Amino acid sequence: MTLPATMKALLLKGDGYAVQPSGTVLEAMEPYVEAATIAVPQPEEGQVLVKVRLASINPSDVMFIKGMYGQPRKQGQPAGFEGVGEVVAAGSSAQALALVGKRVAFPTGRSNWGSWAEYAIAEAGACIPLLEGVSDEDGAAMIVNPLTALAMFGIVREEGEKAFVLTAGASQLCKLMIGVAKEEGFRPIAIVRRDEQIPLLEGIGAAHVLNAEAPDFPAKLAAVLREEKPRIFLDAVAGPLAAQIFTAMGKRARWIIYGRLDPAETPIPEPGQMIFMHKKIEGFWLTEWMGSAGPERRMKAVVEAQKRFSDGRWSTDVTAVVPLEEAVARVADELAKPNGKVFIAP
Amino acid sequence: MTLPATMKALLLKGDGYAVQPSGTVLEAMEPYVEAATIAVPQPEEGQVLVKVRLASINPSDVMFIKGMYGQPRKQGQPAGFEGVGEVVAAGSSAQALALVGKRVAFPTGRSNWGSWAEYAIAEAGACIPLLEGVSDEDGAAMIVNPLTALAMFGIVREEGEKAFVLTAGASQLCKLMIGVAKEEGFRPIAIVRRDEQIPLLEGIGAAHVLNAEAPDFPAKLAAVLREEKPRIFLDAVAGPLAAQIFTAMGKRARWIIYGRLDPAETPIPEPGQMIFMHKKIEGFWLTEWMGSAGPERRMKAVVEAQKRFSDGRWSTDVTAVVPLEEAVARVADELAKPNGKVFIAP
Repeated sequence: MTLPATMKALLLKGDGYAVQPSGTVLEAMEPYVEAATIAVPQPEEGQVLVKVRLASINPSDVMFIKGMYGQPRKQGQPAGFEGVGEVVAAGSSAQALALVGKRVAFPTGRSNWGSWAEYAIAEAGACIPLLEGVSDEDGAAMIVNPLTALAMFGIVREEGEKAFVLTAGASQLCKLMIGVAKEEGFRPIAIVRRDEQIPLLEGIGAAHVLNAEAPDFPAKLAAVLREEKPRIFLDAVAGPLAAQIFTAMGKRARWIIYGRLDPAETPIPEPGQMIFMHKKIEGFWLTEWMGSAGPERRMKAVVEAQKRFSDGRWSTDVTAVVPLEEAVARVADELAKPNGKVFIAP
Repeated sequence: MTLPATMKALLLKGDGYAVQPSGTVLEAMEPYVEAATIAVPQPEEGQVLVKVRLASINPSDVMFIKGMYGQPRKQGQPAGFEGVGEVVAAGSSAQALALVGKRVAFPTGRSNWGSWAEYAIAEAGACIPLLEGVSDEDGAAMIVNPLTALAMFGIVREEGEKAFVLTAGASQLCKLMIGVAKEEGFRPIAIVRRDEQIPLLEGIGAAHVLNAEAPDFPAKLAAVLREEKPRIFLDAVAGPLAAQIFTAMGKRARWIIYGRLDPAETPIPEPGQMIFMHKKIEGFWLTEWMGSAGPERRMKAVVEAQKRFSDGRWSTDVTAVVPLEEAVARVADELAKPNGKVFIAP
């Protein structure tokens, strides 16, 4: 197969980190990425070159292009942390060469060659060759959200308490977690901001769904926490709402922050609870987990994620598939719609 | 020995917890305790009755009498968490009876019979029979501060980094920790609020002493953190200063809160650091540690504390010894003086 010399891609306009952090909502793509034509990259020894079919847009992508993520931007490189496509070239390692011709889900990791492009670079060891029954949409969203869901649910499982609390309860990530939790007899307490999300999440297995905007939220929250005694709080929001929930939780509560949808200041209303109630505040980052979890737990999660998508227990709700050349103009509007994922098709 | 039927004691005026938390400075004793005469308590099976020679006043006592500590007040009971005295009666257990006639350092734990009284109740297993060379002042302050210092320094030792950060650096507790740390080749970074405390703490082994009130504090702090790369932050203060220090620390920093001298709100300025830098916020409470550390580590700490006082490596700086009948009037003023401990002599 002859590869073209150049490709279309969405390139990062900013470099490094944002000087002034902004909100986590993407107001527009234009300040952060631009469509351009650049040279097709070359895979190094353990890498593959993927012809991208679909690339997903996760909250972490939005944070990254705005310069608010855990790794610095590199101006002029394509954005995009994951996607699905066909391996069309490989570096010299056997593992990489064995993937040529296969359809894979892939993360771009720290390669600086993102998935919002016609071609992307991925580490061969991180690619997941896909079963036939898995759709491109599921494949393109198989890594970031699913592995985060399984890894964080693993924390809940290890802690032992059946109930746990989730903010941003209607996110794709939380919906995946709620499904796994229900199957294993756990009791997710999902916090949302809209009443219409309540029946949806109850339907897929949430034990309780509370609307944080409702006037009786503090009383309902207190009652549910008393009844269910959750210890783990998986929080995508931070800010005053998360602080309120953590403060209302009981002894040995662990506030695990994995996102910051609310840019407002995050207080610790009662530091004494850290001392006398043995509460803790920590964080979760998939990139860190991938490094620290060890190959066995990582592989187990990868296999489980694909199995769940291929047997239909998990599926990806699609809001829109946007052609790459329309992405700068349309993506922000599509992301503003609730309940599904937005993809870029190069 | 015939015991009197009644005794003088400082009794708690409040019950349970404060409805409205106030600052941690003791503005006066009068709102919280009153001198009165009550019946001498009877020791139960595993307990001893101690004729108190000296009782110490720790920050935890102040928090407790104000209703801001981890256990509720019981109105009409004597306050005071530790002291030194002679065992004059015992319950029926062999361990308790073996202590009769001995001079002991004792914690009152959760017995509700505090040390700010002529007689106090303590669990026999928690009493420390004192060597002759140990002064009453050292004995009266041998448990709360020294065991907290040794237990928290144990966390530093386990973490492995030589440098660590301390707020309220000139407190008795921190001075004890700095002494141990220096001996073992660790590098304490002490944060203080007065320039005159700098030579004092450098003299006993602090690697760096920074005045948080100095205009160049942020720059000096950044330079020291860059140079020393501490991970553990032992914090008695909370509030904005502690948040500033934690935010300036590097990857995997652990903010361990054990006191809240600053009643102002405690922010988490950058929740993203929990995610991407794997930072954590936790607490330390001696009472919890006593339960969870196991008898061997606990006993090791007790033996080490007494050894350090008896061989002179540790000694207690005394600000004042106040007779019990003068305590309500004088203690708040004595506590306001820097650098030493205040004792009550029944």
